[in-house]
Amino acid sequence: MWRLYDYQESGNGYKVRLLLRQLGHPFELVHLDILKGQTRTPEFLADKNPNGKIPVLEFDAGRRLWESNAILWYLAEGTQFVPADAFLRAQVLQWMCFEQYSHEPYIATVRFWEFSGQMDAHRHELEERRRRGVQALQVMEGHLSAHPYFVGDAYTIADIALYAYTHVADEGGYDLAPYPALRRWLGRVREQPGHLLITDPCK
Amino acid sequence: MWRLYDYQESGNGYKVRLLLRQLGHPFELVHLDILKGQTRTPEFLADKNPNGKIPVLEFDAGRRLWESNAILWYLAEGTQFVPADAFLRAQVLQWMCFEQYSHEPYIATVRFWEFSGQMDAHRHELEERRRRGVQALQVMEGHLSAHPYFVGDAYTIADIALYAYTHVADEGGYDLAPYPALRRWLGRVREQPGHLLITDPCK
Repeated sequence: MWRLYDYQESGNGYKVRLLLRQLGHPFELVHLDILKGQTRTPEFLADKNPNGKIPVLEFDAGRRLWESNAILWYLAEGTQFVPADAFLRAQVLQWMCFEQYSHEPYIATVRFWEFSGQMDAHRHELEERRRRGVQALQVMEGHLSAHPYFVGDAYTIADIALYAYTHVADEGGYDLAPYPALRRWLGRVREQPGHLLITDPCK
Repeated sequence: MWRLYDYQESGNGYKVRLLLRQLGHPFELVHLDILKGQTRTPEFLADKNPNGKIPVLEFDAGRRLWESNAILWYLAEGTQFVPADAFLRAQVLQWMCFEQYSHEPYIATVRFWEFSGQMDAHRHELEERRRRGVQALQVMEGHLSAHPYFVGDAYTIADIALYAYTHVADEGGYDLAPYPALRRWLGRVREQPGHLLITDPCK
């Protein structure tokens, strides 16, 4: 049985939960509390992820992968969730890289400060983070104004990666009203078979 | 003729230049000065990359890709620089995601502040960035103490991605002396056929 080390509030963990559900692959869930340092213990660093983060997906053979987008890729290869065409595949990675570098550190991090009670400690960084978060949403809106999904005409792991923190961006104080195409895309993702919310019990 | 929009000092651009050279693929280089806002013009945002960053690789047909690691993947697919095995391929992506999320924002950004004269403006963030940069180097050292390269026993685009800013980490004030395995790995990468330095003329 595959084992997913995860944290309920994590959008990065949610990406993996969502795809596993949409693939119909059973897994055991191990909840770790990142706020209590459970991903920074010597055991976790030595045995699970030397970088001290969830999600980690552990396979039958004791082999494991970390980094949400790498896990998505591994799970989705050869399925409907990654295109077969080489250029489209690269576009999937392009948008997943965009998510990790230009979206997550602004959209997800501000939400994290909010629910973990760290907003006051980061008040001096907030304006710059918000500016960049808005910039990421504008890039998404521009693309989605002309395309139904991020790559080709179908739902892929690029959509899963970008949906994860965008659909809860309001929890970080981002107003999605100015992005109608983005909001229509959120609806299309929500309507995919097997969809679940970040707050849904994982199994 | 492929066209690479690039900036000489960029490690992200350098990744693509290095792989193109190692693949022996000719390309035309277009230098843009990010310090003068040349990747934030309305034309660049509309025609090249809506996210306003180099590198962008433009193909014959006017198709283009942005995000350095997505470009590396596209170029390396089917070559010696990406393994054939699905799990090893996912590990390549894992380390490339690590590079973009847990390494580049600390190792590369501090170097950028240094050479662009923005260090004083970011002095209040420096300690935290350095702490995380050191953490990334420690994760690399741990892996390289037991493995010659990041994935399998061969040089892949995961090594290219991580080498780019690590080999100039000293320019951001990082001392690599405490990381002997990492320094041996830098040497192995440097010895690969077709290697070039970030400062080398691109063609």
